[in-house]
Amino acid sequence: MGRAYHGHLMSADTIEHLQARSRRSAEQILRAAVQVITRQGIHDFTMSAVSDAAGISIGGVYGRYPNKEALLRAVKDEVLTGLETDVQRQLDAADPGSRALLGAFTHVVSNAFAESSGLYAFIFIHSAQDAAMKARGFAFHQRVKGLLQERLLDHGVTDQTGVDVAYDMIMQSLLMRVISMGNVPDGEVPYAGFPDPDLYAREIVLAVDAYVAQRSRPA
Amino acid sequence: MGRAYHGHLMSADTIEHLQARSRRSAEQILRAAVQVITRQGIHDFTMSAVSDAAGISIGGVYGRYPNKEALLRAVKDEVLTGLETDVQRQLDAADPGSRALLGAFTHVVSNAFAESSGLYAFIFIHSAQDAAMKARGFAFHQRVKGLLQERLLDHGVTDQTGVDVAYDMIMQSLLMRVISMGNVPDGEVPYAGFPDPDLYAREIVLAVDAYVAQRSRPA
Repeated sequence: MGRAYHGHLMSADTIEHLQARSRRSAEQILRAAVQVITRQGIHDFTMSAVSDAAGISIGGVYGRYPNKEALLRAVKDEVLTGLETDVQRQLDAADPGSRALLGAFTHVVSNAFAESSGLYAFIFIHSAQDAAMKARGFAFHQRVKGLLQERLLDHGVTDQTGVDVAYDMIMQSLLMRVISMGNVPDGEVPYAGFPDPDLYAREIVLAVDAYVAQRSRPA
Repeated sequence: MGRAYHGHLMSADTIEHLQARSRRSAEQILRAAVQVITRQGIHDFTMSAVSDAAGISIGGVYGRYPNKEALLRAVKDEVLTGLETDVQRQLDAADPGSRALLGAFTHVVSNAFAESSGLYAFIFIHSAQDAAMKARGFAFHQRVKGLLQERLLDHGVTDQTGVDVAYDMIMQSLLMRVISMGNVPDGEVPYAGFPDPDLYAREIVLAVDAYVAQRSRPA
């Protein structure tokens, strides 16, 4: 099945080749966009900075993504899909028991946020003015909470409210830290006693596991 | 002691009268600014909306606050000073014991945030580009954590790391909810199983109290 192209018909091979090239440059632009946000933050994010970082002409960038919003939506989807996959993988690999599952979950999220706080601050906070981006964020919460819940259920945790609350305590505490850390220069702490990421993740697991255990005990 | 005014000397009474009037209109403008942010959010915040809400001429508003940033700094200081006072009062009135203290603390903060999520979203998040406002936010954390720590210490909780982590778990979880709630229309929930504010506050107290108790037990 050929398609019209400058008056000729393209062969299936040519079409496949062009599609593969198009996919590659779309990926290249996405990776460059992630890099620009991670290094410079969302406020200095421009299509021309992305074009420079990708080594693709500005026309080529606009050819794949008609505007900044379309590119940012693709970035958000790419990053959250990646984190969803990582969460799934870590939960699958975790030792049995609620403490180990909550630990695997908390650490994979905490590490992702700590490595790229500017990126996640944009993804969850500054993208909230756009309905599609907001919906993608809420879908992320639904999905990863579902993954956690499913695995905890395998280990006898049937308490839906307990899991809902545990999920929010973990996720919201870690996300808010991203904002606080994003607002101070590297190496400084926002205020005295602000726990380092590893300690904080470890202690959240203790608290949430104690909470889940307490809810499952008869009063 | 008179002061020069249109070529005359003002009496002490006149000065006091003018100062009182100036204080009153400064307070009126501040209250109006809080109202505008609470109702319309920070994105539609303008000096002219504040002038309308205060019933004070735009010139009168600029006479007290030379620009929007100065007014927003005063708003942040006013709101956080109010919340610091409420926290102190609730901790003073709380029953003895760590559960009651953590409960009093969590509920006063949760209620304040739930009542004015747009206002607190501005205060902790959107004001972070301004060094003075950022510093005021961090000073708030330092102060209220100090109040909580002092009262817990009266009840034998000497574990500094435990209190640091407990404070951040409570505060960061509640603050991040403010953002999520601020991003959906009134009455909707961001995603399935998003706990209502009262339930969430109650369960955070259970989790954090279990955590503090666990840290104080010999391993």
